[in-house]
Amino acid sequence: MDKLLYGVAYYDEYMPYERLEKDVQMMKEAGINVVRIAESTWSTVEPQDGVFDFTHIDRMLAAMQKGGIKVIVGTPTYAIPTWMARKHPEILAITPSGQNQYGPRQNMDITNTDFRMYAERVIRKIMEHVKDNPAVIGYQVDNETKSYGTSGPNVQALFVKYMQAKYKTLDNINHIFGLDYWSNRINAWEDFPSMNNTINGSLSSEFAKFQRQVVTQYLGWQAAIVREYKRPDQFITQNFDLDWRGSSFGIQPDVDHFAAAKVMDIAGIDIYHPSQDKLTGAEISFGGDLTRSMKGGKNYLTIETEAQGFAQWTPYPGQLRLQAFSHLASGANMVGYWPWHSIHNSAETYWKGLLSHDFEPNPVYNEAKTIGKDFDRLSPKLINLKKKNDVAILFSNEALTGFKAFGFGWGVRTGYNEVLRQLYDGLYHMNVGCDFVDPTSLNIENYKLLVVPVLYAAPDSLLQRLNRYVKNGGHIIYTFKSGFSDENVKVRTTHQPGIINEALGIYYSQFTVPENVGLKGDDFNLKPEDKKLNTWMELITPTTAKVLAYYDHPVWGKYAAITENTYGKGLATYIGCVTTSAVTDKILADAVKKAGLWGTDQQLAFPLITKYGVNQAGKTVHYYFNYSDKEVNFIYPYGNGKELFSGASVSSNSAMQLEPWGMKIVEVN
Amino acid sequence: MDKLLYGVAYYDEYMPYERLEKDVQMMKEAGINVVRIAESTWSTVEPQDGVFDFTHIDRMLAAMQKGGIKVIVGTPTYAIPTWMARKHPEILAITPSGQNQYGPRQNMDITNTDFRMYAERVIRKIMEHVKDNPAVIGYQVDNETKSYGTSGPNVQALFVKYMQAKYKTLDNINHIFGLDYWSNRINAWEDFPSMNNTINGSLSSEFAKFQRQVVTQYLGWQAAIVREYKRPDQFITQNFDLDWRGSSFGIQPDVDHFAAAKVMDIAGIDIYHPSQDKLTGAEISFGGDLTRSMKGGKNYLTIETEAQGFAQWTPYPGQLRLQAFSHLASGANMVGYWPWHSIHNSAETYWKGLLSHDFEPNPVYNEAKTIGKDFDRLSPKLINLKKKNDVAILFSNEALTGFKAFGFGWGVRTGYNEVLRQLYDGLYHMNVGCDFVDPTSLNIENYKLLVVPVLYAAPDSLLQRLNRYVKNGGHIIYTFKSGFSDENVKVRTTHQPGIINEALGIYYSQFTVPENVGLKGDDFNLKPEDKKLNTWMELITPTTAKVLAYYDHPVWGKYAAITENTYGKGLATYIGCVTTSAVTDKILADAVKKAGLWGTDQQLAFPLITKYGVNQAGKTVHYYFNYSDKEVNFIYPYGNGKELFSGASVSSNSAMQLEPWGMKIVEVN
Amino acid sequence: MDKLLYGVAYYDEYMPYERLEKDVQMMKEAGINVVRIAESTWSTVEPQDGVFDFTHIDRMLAAMQKGGIKVIVGTPTYAIPTWMARKHPEILAITPSGQNQYGPRQNMDITNTDFRMYAERVIRKIMEHVKDNPAVIGYQVDNETKSYGTSGPNVQALFVKYMQAKYKTLDNINHIFGLDYWSNRINAWEDFPSMNNTINGSLSSEFAKFQRQVVTQYLGWQAAIVREYKRPDQFITQNFDLDWRGSSFGIQPDVDHFAAAKVMDIAGIDIYHPSQDKLTGAEISFGGDLTRSMKGGKNYLTIETEAQGFAQWTPYPGQLRLQAFSHLASGANMVGYWPWHSIHNSAETYWKGLLSHDFEPNPVYNEAKTIGKDFDRLSPKLINLKKKNDVAILFSNEALTGFKAFGFGWGVRTGYNEVLRQLYDGLYHMNVGCDFVDPTSLNIENYKLLVVPVLYAAPDSLLQRLNRYVKNGGHIIYTFKSGFSDENVKVRTTHQPGIINEALGIYYSQFTVPENVGLKGDDFNLKPEDKKLNTWMELITPTTAKVLAYYDHPVWGKYAAITENTYGKGLATYIGCVTTSAVTDKILADAVKKAGLWGTDQQLAFPLITKYGVNQAGKTVHYYFNYSDKEVNFIYPYGNGKELFSGASVSSNSAMQLEPWGMKIVEVN
Repeated sequence: MDKLLYGVAYYDEYMPYERLEKDVQMMKEAGINVVRIAESTWSTVEPQDGVFDFTHIDRMLAAMQKGGIKVIVGTPTYAIPTWMARKHPEILAITPSGQNQYGPRQNMDITNTDFRMYAERVIRKIMEHVKDNPAVIGYQVDNETKSYGTSGPNVQALFVKYMQAKYKTLDNINHIFGLDYWSNRINAWEDFPSMNNTINGSLSSEFAKFQRQVVTQYLGWQAAIVREYKRPDQFITQNFDLDWRGSSFGIQPDVDHFAAAKVMDIAGIDIYHPSQDKLTGAEISFGGDLTRSMKGGKNYLTIETEAQGFAQWTPYPGQLRLQAFSHLASGANMVGYWPWHSIHNSAETYWKGLLSHDFEPNPVYNEAKTIGKDFDRLSPKLINLKKKNDVAILFSNEALTGFKAFGFGWGVRTGYNEVLRQLYDGLYHMNVGCDFVDPTSLNIENYKLLVVPVLYAAPDSLLQRLNRYVKNGGHIIYTFKSGFSDENVKVRTTHQPGIINEALGIYYSQFTVPENVGLKGDDFNLKPEDKKLNTWMELITPTTAKVLAYYDHPVWGKYAAITENTYGKGLATYIGCVTTSAVTDKILADAVKKAGLWGTDQQLAFPLITKYGVNQAGKTVHYYFNYSDKEVNFIYPYGNGKELFSGASVSSNSAMQLEPWGMKIVEVN
Repeated sequence: MDKLLYGVAYYDEYMPYERLEKDVQMMKEAGINVVRIAESTWSTVEPQDGVFDFTHIDRMLAAMQKGGIKVIVGTPTYAIPTWMARKHPEILAITPSGQNQYGPRQNMDITNTDFRMYAERVIRKIMEHVKDNPAVIGYQVDNETKSYGTSGPNVQALFVKYMQAKYKTLDNINHIFGLDYWSNRINAWEDFPSMNNTINGSLSSEFAKFQRQVVTQYLGWQAAIVREYKRPDQFITQNFDLDWRGSSFGIQPDVDHFAAAKVMDIAGIDIYHPSQDKLTGAEISFGGDLTRSMKGGKNYLTIETEAQGFAQWTPYPGQLRLQAFSHLASGANMVGYWPWHSIHNSAETYWKGLLSHDFEPNPVYNEAKTIGKDFDRLSPKLINLKKKNDVAILFSNEALTGFKAFGFGWGVRTGYNEVLRQLYDGLYHMNVGCDFVDPTSLNIENYKLLVVPVLYAAPDSLLQRLNRYVKNGGHIIYTFKSGFSDENVKVRTTHQPGIINEALGIYYSQFTVPENVGLKGDDFNLKPEDKKLNTWMELITPTTAKVLAYYDHPVWGKYAAITENTYGKGLATYIGCVTTSAVTDKILADAVKKAGLWGTDQQLAFPLITKYGVNQAGKTVHYYFNYSDKEVNFIYPYGNGKELFSGASVSSNSAMQLEPWGMKIVEVN
Repeated sequence: MDKLLYGVAYYDEYMPYERLEKDVQMMKEAGINVVRIAESTWSTVEPQDGVFDFTHIDRMLAAMQKGGIKVIVGTPTYAIPTWMARKHPEILAITPSGQNQYGPRQNMDITNTDFRMYAERVIRKIMEHVKDNPAVIGYQVDNETKSYGTSGPNVQALFVKYMQAKYKTLDNINHIFGLDYWSNRINAWEDFPSMNNTINGSLSSEFAKFQRQVVTQYLGWQAAIVREYKRPDQFITQNFDLDWRGSSFGIQPDVDHFAAAKVMDIAGIDIYHPSQDKLTGAEISFGGDLTRSMKGGKNYLTIETEAQGFAQWTPYPGQLRLQAFSHLASGANMVGYWPWHSIHNSAETYWKGLLSHDFEPNPVYNEAKTIGKDFDRLSPKLINLKKKNDVAILFSNEALTGFKAFGFGWGVRTGYNEVLRQLYDGLYHMNVGCDFVDPTSLNIENYKLLVVPVLYAAPDSLLQRLNRYVKNGGHIIYTFKSGFSDENVKVRTTHQPGIINEALGIYYSQFTVPENVGLKGDDFNLKPEDKKLNTWMELITPTTAKVLAYYDHPVWGKYAAITENTYGKGLATYIGCVTTSAVTDKILADAVKKAGLWGTDQQLAFPLITKYGVNQAGKTVHYYFNYSDKEVNFIYPYGNGKELFSGASVSSNSAMQLEPWGMKIVEVN
C-alpha cells in the first residue's frame, strides 16, 4: 500500500434522492480517498433470479474514478434477496431457535448448496463486471461472516461426516466425549442426534469448532472465486468483527480469525467503541493488535469504525482525530467510516454516518476534513508502520468455547473475554505494546512475556510446549482454569492445573466461590476493597512455587491464591482467582519488570497513551495520545525529532503538552 | 340519554348457584340501573355449531325488565367456543410468536372468513332475539377489539393487496421504504415477504397502520349488522381500552380510536386505575378527555371501571364515590363496574367485582349504594355535561407506532405515552381542561394552545398546517423528535425538526444521550436535580428562536435545549430533550399564561382537582375533588350557587373544605 | 436393615480409564459399604434395540461382591438411548413449550406405549440378570421421576378419559370449573381442548393432579415388574426429590410423595443443601422429616446428598460429618453421596463427587473416612432410630398447585413452599420435632399441634375434619388463604376462610396488598421492622376470636391480622397476612407452649440443634449439633449416659461444649 486510505462505506442504492456527484465532491473536500461499495446489495444487483443490473455499481465506479477516489468492492452475499427466500425457503437457516424468517441479514444457511450456487454466480458476474476498472483496488469477500448458528439436518449430517473423519469410531467418540453419561451413548452412526439440545459441553464445543471451520471454508471458497478474476494489484480482504458487548469487545467466538485470515491478502476489521467520556482507545488498540497479528504483524485495514454511530457516541470535538491516528499507531493503513451518510430507513437509521440525515456539513464532517488533510500530508511518514513487541497474549477459541460451555460451573456461562480484556487493558494502560498469538502460532517462542488467560481447553502438546517455553527462559502469566481440560474439553484426570503445574509448581483439586474473601500476605500495597475476590477461587497448594498472595478467609487461608515459580531459566505466574484489575495491574507490572521490559513509556500511564513503530524511512515514530478531557504534561524521553502535525523540532527530554483529547506524533531524527 | 347510568357487567352464565332474583334485588338497592350482558359468552349462546340457546339471555332480560334495570347487550364475539377451534383450527390466529392455542380470549384471526361467517350468524341470531325487548337500550359490538397480532399468510396477502392499492408500484415501495437496505428490495409482488420478521421499521409501522384499519373495518362490519336490527332508540357502542401498564395508561397503539368511533353512536371506554394512596384521578381524567374527544365532545360511557379490582386496588372509604363523580366531571353519562360479582373460577378470579365471592354486602357495595342514590337524585343536574376547552393535545397513532419502531434509536423502544402523559398530567395537575385531537381532526384550529408530544411521523401537509396554525396566532408546544420522519416513517432529508423548524426558528442535525447533563440559563427557578435530563437530547441551534434553556455540559453547553419562537401572530415552543415533569410543568404553566388561559382554577392545584361544565339547564357546574388523605381548604371563586350533595347555598368567595378523598359540586345560580 | 449404609453412586460406565479395583479399595478405606449403580445408563446396557450388554453391571457386581460392598441397582429408564429417539421420535414428550429434542434426561413421554414396552423389556432383562447376586440388597425404580410436563395429544386424550371417569358429564365439568367464563364451555367431549394454554386455573390444577397420578401409576408399574423378580430380602425404593430453588427446598409439586411411596418398601430421597456459612441443617431436617413421614415414621434412605457438589458448596472441615449424622438424627438409615467421582464430561462436570476429577484423596474424602469408621462402629446404636412427634405440618399438593395457579392473585404465582418453610424452619430453630401429614393421612388426629400453611384448595370434608380436630382438643395454626377454594379450586361462595371460620371465629370478604403496613396491638415484643408485612393481608373481622394483632394502618387499622379462638376443647390460630419469620416464630413458640410441648430442648435454639429418638436397644439417643463457626456451651439436661463418639460418660446437668460445626451424641443409660 502506498498511501494511507481514508474511507467510507457508500451506498448509492440507499439514496433518497440523486446525490452521487454532490457526495463525491463532499468526500473529496473531506479527503476521503476510498469507498467501500456493494456489500449487502444483492437484491439490487440481481433483482430477480439470473437477472443482473449493475446500474448502481457502474454509476459509482464512474463517479469515483472521475473523482480520483479508489473503490473496494464487496461481494453482496451476506443478505439474500426476497426472491431467493421465496424460491428456496430452505436457504433460511434452521438454528436451535427454529427456522429463520426473512427480514434480517445473515439469516441464511451458508452450507446450503443452492445458496452456494447463487452466491458463486453473483460473485462471478460482479467480478467479470468490475475487475478491470482502474478505480477498484481490492475486494471484500462477504461481511462479518459467521455460521449464524446454522444447525439444521444438513449441517448435522455434515457434522457427523466431520466426526467420522476426525475420530473414526463411535467407541472413540463415546469415550472421548463421555457419552455414556445420562445415556447419551451413540452406538450406530445413524443414531447420531442433533447437537441442538445436547447437554454435553465437550460435544457442543466440538460442534462450535466445526462451525468455525465452516466459516473458514466458506470464506476460502469465496476468496478463491474472486482470485480467479482479480488483477495482481488488487487485494482480497474481509471485514472481521469482534465479540460484541454493545461495542467491539473481545475475541470473536464464531470465527477462527487466524485461520480465516490466511486466505486474505490483507486483514480487515471493524472496531466500534464507546465515545465521549467513555472513550479510552482500548478497543482501537485491542482490535488493532489482534488484526495486525492475524497475518503476523502485517499492516491491516480498519474497514469500519464509527463516525457518529449510536446517539451516545456522538464524538466530542477532537475525538474523531484522536481515534483516526490511534488506528494508525496500531498499524492500520486505512480508517473507514460506516457509513457515509445516515440512512433514512430500516434497522440502522440511528447508526449515524459521517453525514447526518440532512447531508449537510456538521461538526464531525468538518473534523474529518482535517484528518483527511493530515492523512494525505503525513501518509509517507505514517503508512506501513512496523511494530515489534516482546509481549504477547495467547488466546484460544477452543478455550473460549469450552469455557463458555462450562464457565465457572453451573450458572455462570461467560467471562473469557472479560478476563482477557482485564489483562489486555492492564498492558494498554501501562503502554506495553503487545501482539496476539493462538495455539497454531509458530512464533510464540519469540516473545519474552506471554499472558495466557483461561486456557481452559488445550491439548497436552500445547501445555508441554508452554512448559518448555518457560524452561527456556520465557515468562508466562496464567489465570485460573488454565489446563483444566484437554482439547476435547474433557476435564483432565490429573492434579490441576493439568501439565502446566510442572512449570507452575502448584496443584489443586478443589475450588470454590469466594464470599467475603480477599487476599493476604501479598506485597501489592493495595486497599482491602481492591483485594476483594469474586466469582471463583482455586484452593492451591504450592509445591515449589513462591506464594504471592494467600486467601484472606478463616477456612481457606492456608491455600495460595497467586503464585510464582522459577522453572528452568524462566518464570511462571499463576492467578488462581478472579481479582480486581488493581491486582492484575500489579502482577502485570511486576512481570513486565522481571522480563526486563520496563522502559520510559511505562513511566507514563493512561490516560496518556503512547505507541511507536518504525516507518518506511526506517525512522521511529512515537505517538502520544491524551485520552482525557484534562491537559497532560510529560517529558519527551527519546532522541531529537520532529513533531509531525506542527512540523516543530522536538529535543530530547523536552517538556510536551497535550490538549484535552489531543495528541502529538514525533518522528525521531 | 335522559338519565345517568350506573351499571355493572352481569354474567348469569358464571353463577355458581341460582342468584338472579337476589342479584337484581341487591342491584336495585345499590341504585344500579343498567347491566351489560352477553359479551364473551359465545359458548353458552351457541353451544354447538348452529345450535342456539338463549336461556341465560332470556332469564336476564326478563329479570332486569321486571326490576326496571336497563340492559346493554354485547355481541359475544371476542372469545370463540371450543367447537369452533376444533372444527376450524385455522381460526386461531397466527402471530409472530406462532399459532395461538385455544384457551384465552382474543385468540382468533378476525380476518378469517369462517370466523366472520360464524360471528355474523351469532350476531344476527342474538339481534333477532333481543331487539324488541324494551329493557334493551343499546348494544356493545365486540369488546376491547384489536387485531391481536394476527399476521398469518392470509393477513400478509391482504397486506400486499393494501400496499398495491396504496402505492401502486414496487419501485414506489422500494424507494419510499428504503428496501434496498440489507437487500430487502422486492422486485416482484409474489416475492413480498411476511412482515413478521421485517427489520424495516417504516414497513412495520405501515403494517401496524394496516392492522388498525383491519380493526376499524371489523368494528364497522359488526356495527352495520347490528344496525340492521336495532330500534331507533337503541345505541351502538364499543368498549375501547387504553394502552396498558398495569392499569390504563395511554393512547391505544392498536386501534385508531377516532376512526373506529365514527361507526358508534356513542363512545365507550374502560378505565382502570391505581387506587388507595396511588389514586390521583389522572387516568379517569385522561381516559375521559380522550373518549369525549372521540366523537367531538359528545358525552360518553365509562363502560368498565373497577369496583374492587386487583387486591391492591381495594378502595379506601370515600374513593369509590370520588371516582364515580370524577367520571361525570369529565363528561361521562355512565359509570359501569366490571363485574357485578367476583368470579369463582378462571383468569379473573382475583379481579374482584362490586360483590366479593361471598355475594354479601361489603364496604365497597355499601358505598356504591350512596353513589346510586346520588346519581339518581342528581341526574338532571349532572347528565349531559357540556365541556369546552381551549387546550388540546395532538396525538397520532402513526407517530406512536413509528416512534415505537425506532424510539430513541437502538435499544430504547418505548416512551410515546410516557411523554404524552407527562404533559397531560401537567395540565391535569394545574386544572387546565383539555381535549384530544388527531391528525384527521378538523377542529385543531379552534384551540388556543396545542400540545404536541413526539410527532415522530407526519406528512408534510400536517406540519405545514401546524405552521399555519401558529402563524395565525396559535401556540404550540412540541417535544423532541417531532417532525423527524414523514408519513412513511422515512427520516426527513432536511434539517430537523423537519418543516416545523420554520415556525420554531431552530435546527439540529445531531443528538446524543445525556450523561450528567442538566439545564442552564433558564428562568425555571428549579433545583439542579429537577433540571437533570435523561434519555435524549438534541443539539439545537436557534435561528430566530429565543433560548429558554441551554444544556449544562462542558461540551454541549453551546446548544439550546428548550426554545420559544414568535412566528406570525403565534408562538412555538420546542422541548429538545427529556426532562423531569418539574420542567414541563413550568413550560406548560408559562404557555397557559401566554395563551391567556390562566384563571382562578389554575390557582388551585393537585391534589385539589376542579372540573366544570354546563348542564342541561345551561348552568355551570363546578366539581371540586380532593385526591388526598388530608383535608383541603380553598376559596370558592365563582358566583353564588348550591352545593349539590348537601343542598347548601354557596356564596361567592366563601371558604370551602373538602374531607380526605372528599368532594363537592357547586351549581352556579 | 441391620447396618447403617454409607454409600456412593458409582458409574463404571463414565470412567475415563480403568479404575474399578482402585475405586473399590478407596471406597473400603472410606467405609463406603453400599453403591448405587445403573440408573440412567440405558444406552450402555442396551446399546441397540434389543441388544443387551451387561459388561459394566457384571464388572461392578463382581468387584463389589469381592470387596464386601452392597449394591442398589437402579432401573435405567430416566434417560433414553439415542437409537430409541431416532426410531420413535414421538417418545420425546410434547410439552407446553413444544416437542422435546434429544439431549437431556427426562425428556420422554412416560405414558407412551412404545416407551413402556422398551422400559419393561430392559427392566426385566436387568432383573433376570442381577436378582440372584448376593451383593444386591435392593432396587431403585427410575430416578427423580415426574411427568416432565408431558402434555401432547395422547396425554390430553388420557386426561379427557380421566375427566369422564371422574366427573361423568360435561355439564358437571362446565359448572364445577366455571367454563362458561370467556366462552371456554365444552359442549361435546370431542371439543375438549388441550390444557396447554388453558386460562382456567382450576382446570390446570386438575390437570396437574392428573399428571401426578400418571407418576404414581408409572412408579407402581415399574415396582410391580421389579417385584416379580426380587428376592424377599431385597427392597424397592425410589429416589424422590424436593422442590428445587438452587437446592432442595420444599414439597415437590409434581409428585404425590405419600401416594407414590406406598408401592415402595422403603422411602428414599435426595437432599442437596447450601453449605459453608449457609449450612443450617434445615434442609436435611426438612427432607428427613418429610421422607420419614412418607411411610408413617419408617426409617428412610438419603440416597443422594452432596459430598462436594457445586463449587460454592465445598464443605468446611467438619461439615461433612455434621451433615452425615444430621441425616441419621432425622431417622435415615443411609447416607449416600452423588457421585463417587467428579465426572469429566457433560452437564454435571461441576457437580463434584467425593473424589475430585483427579481421583486422589482430598480433604472431603479424608473426612468421609472418619464418618465411615463411625457409621460402622456406632451402627448398632444409631440405626433404626424411632421418632415420635406431637407436632405435624399438614401439606397438600392440591393446595400447592391451586395456589401456584392463582397465588396472591395476578402476577405473584409462587410462595406455598416459602410459607411452609418459614413455619417449618421456625419449629426447627426451636428444636421442635415434627412430622408431615397430607389430606389422605389417617393419623392427623394423633398430633397435639397441627401447622397448616396455605390450605388454598380443600374439600369440605377435610375442613370439617379439621374443625372436629380442634373441637376435640387439638390446636391448629392456619395461615392466610386457607379454606379459600374447594377441591376443584373453585373459590368458596361463603364468607372466608371457608368452613374453618367456624373453628377460627373470624370472617373476611376483602383482602389487599400491604404498603407500609405493620402490626399493632400485639404482645410480640418485636421491633417495628420485624412487624412489617409484605405481599398480602386479609381484612378480618373477629366473631368469637381474640385478636392477637391488628393492622397498623390509618385505614385498615380496624381489621384483625392475627387471631386465636377457643373452639370446643381446642384452639385455632389464624395468620391473615404475610409476616416476617420473627412474627411466626412468636406464634409458633406460643402455640408449642399452649400445647404443653415446651421442654428443655426448646430452651436451646439454633444454631444449637438437638434431635432425639429411641434406638434398637430401647434407649434414648440425644444428638447435639452446632450449626455455626462459634463454639457453643450448654447444660445437658437428661439422665446420665454415654457420649458415643468419645465413649465418655455424661452425667445429668453437666456442662457440654460443641466445637464450631461440631456435634455430640448421648445415649441415655
